[in-house]
Amino acid sequence: MNETLRARPLRLDTAQPDFEQRFAQRLHWSADTDAAIEARVAEILADVRARGDAAVLDCTRRFDQLEVTSVAELELGPEVLRAAFEALPAAPREALQQAAARIRRYHEAQLEACGRGWEIVDEDGTRLGQKVTPLDRVGIYVPGGKAAYPSSVLMNAIPAHVAGVPEIVMVVPTPRGERNPLVLAAAHVAGVSRAFAIGGAQAVAALAYGTATIPRVDKITGPGNAYVAAAKRRVFGTVGIDMIAGPSEILVLADGSTPPQWVAMDLFSQAEHDELAQSILLCPDAAYLDAVQAAIDRLLPTLPRASIIAASLNGRGLLVRTRDMEEACALSNRIAPEHLEIASREPRRWEPLLRHAGAIFLGAYTSESLGDYCAGPNHVLPTSGTARFSSPLGVMDFQKRSSLIEVSAAGAQRLGRVASVLAHGEGLQAHARAAELRLEAGA
Amino acid sequence: MNETLRARPLRLDTAQPDFEQRFAQRLHWSADTDAAIEARVAEILADVRARGDAAVLDCTRRFDQLEVTSVAELELGPEVLRAAFEALPAAPREALQQAAARIRRYHEAQLEACGRGWEIVDEDGTRLGQKVTPLDRVGIYVPGGKAAYPSSVLMNAIPAHVAGVPEIVMVVPTPRGERNPLVLAAAHVAGVSRAFAIGGAQAVAALAYGTATIPRVDKITGPGNAYVAAAKRRVFGTVGIDMIAGPSEILVLADGSTPPQWVAMDLFSQAEHDELAQSILLCPDAAYLDAVQAAIDRLLPTLPRASIIAASLNGRGLLVRTRDMEEACALSNRIAPEHLEIASREPRRWEPLLRHAGAIFLGAYTSESLGDYCAGPNHVLPTSGTARFSSPLGVMDFQKRSSLIEVSAAGAQRLGRVASVLAHGEGLQAHARAAELRLEAGA
Repeated sequence: MNETLRARPLRLDTAQPDFEQRFAQRLHWSADTDAAIEARVAEILADVRARGDAAVLDCTRRFDQLEVTSVAELELGPEVLRAAFEALPAAPREALQQAAARIRRYHEAQLEACGRGWEIVDEDGTRLGQKVTPLDRVGIYVPGGKAAYPSSVLMNAIPAHVAGVPEIVMVVPTPRGERNPLVLAAAHVAGVSRAFAIGGAQAVAALAYGTATIPRVDKITGPGNAYVAAAKRRVFGTVGIDMIAGPSEILVLADGSTPPQWVAMDLFSQAEHDELAQSILLCPDAAYLDAVQAAIDRLLPTLPRASIIAASLNGRGLLVRTRDMEEACALSNRIAPEHLEIASREPRRWEPLLRHAGAIFLGAYTSESLGDYCAGPNHVLPTSGTARFSSPLGVMDFQKRSSLIEVSAAGAQRLGRVASVLAHGEGLQAHARAAELRLEAGA
Repeated sequence: MNETLRARPLRLDTAQPDFEQRFAQRLHWSADTDAAIEARVAEILADVRARGDAAVLDCTRRFDQLEVTSVAELELGPEVLRAAFEALPAAPREALQQAAARIRRYHEAQLEACGRGWEIVDEDGTRLGQKVTPLDRVGIYVPGGKAAYPSSVLMNAIPAHVAGVPEIVMVVPTPRGERNPLVLAAAHVAGVSRAFAIGGAQAVAALAYGTATIPRVDKITGPGNAYVAAAKRRVFGTVGIDMIAGPSEILVLADGSTPPQWVAMDLFSQAEHDELAQSILLCPDAAYLDAVQAAIDRLLPTLPRASIIAASLNGRGLLVRTRDMEEACALSNRIAPEHLEIASREPRRWEPLLRHAGAIFLGAYTSESLGDYCAGPNHVLPTSGTARFSSPLGVMDFQKRSSLIEVSAAGAQRLGRVASVLAHGEGLQAHARAAELRLEAGA
């Protein structure tokens, strides 16, 4: 085995006196932004806002080496998407359809459980409620090049579709004209309305501001590189955005009952994304950690992306022996991982102790990769500890709610007195008078 | 009447040939940020991050003219909040309690309707679901000075409380030591856990990063000035934030059946917030628009905040005659107003046509001010057209969701084949192998 292909995640024990310090150090990841990227992105956004299609064309020529004379030529029509789907061999075609069906079913259940309006009625006839409506038009960013993931197309477009969004606009860069047939086929399967072969900050700007050719959307979702992330952060407020993703992470809680090579492969499946991805294993059993390390050593050379996996595990990987499973759960809550596997015979015993995680994978058979592709729940999840306060992408991200308030004449008497007192207390007399006018009328 | 106290909202008719242009011009509001404020805020955030309490103290001395020697002295203990409540006269004390009870009830209904977990089970025993958990700790920013609104304390803290957040930390600046007793009393009523007399970007930084004295929170909500808004935007990602609010707006759809002076007062109640607030009336009946203008002329001099109201209506106010109510609804959807009153005899006839709004107030008795204080729904609403893609503050903003995935051995066979094909298609072989290992075992 090549020396560069050794993968040795940092090994810690919570009983070590310097555990806290070394643990914190290993978890540290800075989301600090790059000033040069920020400045470049600000320029591109301003240019697209001012010059529209012309700026998009210039950027696309320059960054994607695509020589076209109009943005219309960059549109990938429905027939292009359908043709990509129909040209696929049977296996990927059926896999896309099966994954899409399961993702659709999960998000339909989500819509049923949390995506509907409701109303309550007071004894005086006052009605209060909430109305839920889909967004009018959303944009989905799909990366091109090496990180071109058709599964991301399904995971972004299907919840929007289930939410009832009538128009879903996809953008995907095609550097030097290279199109990814699986991405285009996934767009067909997922019900994308329009697609454009553009990318980078210029694509985000086009979706946020609109151009003569590209329609302005209400929200932009989907992953991208540092330029795309900076652009999304800047247009937030003009449009909605999903989240700014950091490196991907997996945390495995193991009680020693899952085959070590399964856990090793699950750690690899995170590490193979990129060098900054983080794979963590927590287990009370030191011998099990040894067994997983042995499986890592044995399996690593068999994988095409071994060098990325090794870089990730050597730089950011972590195997921690904990006092017990309870301590492992507490550590996991501090990390708030994006993906959390409970590799245990009793996953439902530990699940209630786990408060912060994007997705929780229960039991030995639930590899993260099943969730990534086809179990049904969304694979767009909060990273870098943001599961403390944010949630997987879902149907609700493609809807918005409006409060409904209908106060009866009788209700206006009761509420008007309260509002009048509080409004005067805040020095807002017109607020008070508006309530009082209704009081007098209904008295 | 003083000449400066004339309030003449711009009068338009959709039949005018230049209507579109004048309408768009009047709606225009730029959310462009101020570079000097941005730079100052970046400095303050970095300083608090590096020096913690010492930086908070320096800023508080400098900006709030408060000479204290430790941040602990700035804590407003529960006994301070309770004393403020108990010292209130009966009328505001009861008004606060009644408002709080109604806000609590509405948000409990919201929790019941949309804030619970759920699960579905496949025929092969695979279980998929969603777990809902409250955030651990949230921060609520409450402005001091002229815009000190106790109602905002209720509207931010109560949904967090109902969501089950165990710790709610309030910050409120007290320039030169001036405390607003209603704000402190509202904090007592709303169940705030801890409160600090700090404000500005330094308070946002302290909540986002934590200091020796001030606990780090997971999310910061609540309104503030340009410095607070810039700080919230910058810490977004480190913590969650609610939204960046623009100027407040009301749009009234009138069919002519509501007393014109009621509508005039409702327009005032928005305009009195500040000069940039926007009040818009849409109505098919020109005579009714005349009657509202006459009511404006008559009522304006009777209001203490007449000069702010006049500045707002003269600068941004708008009375539009539409062809019919349908056209008025379509125009309203283009604006996506924060507050939308349907001043009509048939509010439920028009409500289904209205797709974008923060809150919809139905019928003549439902003045916006009732909703602002005590109807029950939240008064923290999306402004500046962001109701196209965002929602009122609510219980869900203080919870997060985690996907739950438990694949059975049988399920792993079915799903593993699909995942394997898609993972190979994306060039992620460790993902494929992780699925395949479970295939072999379960075969």
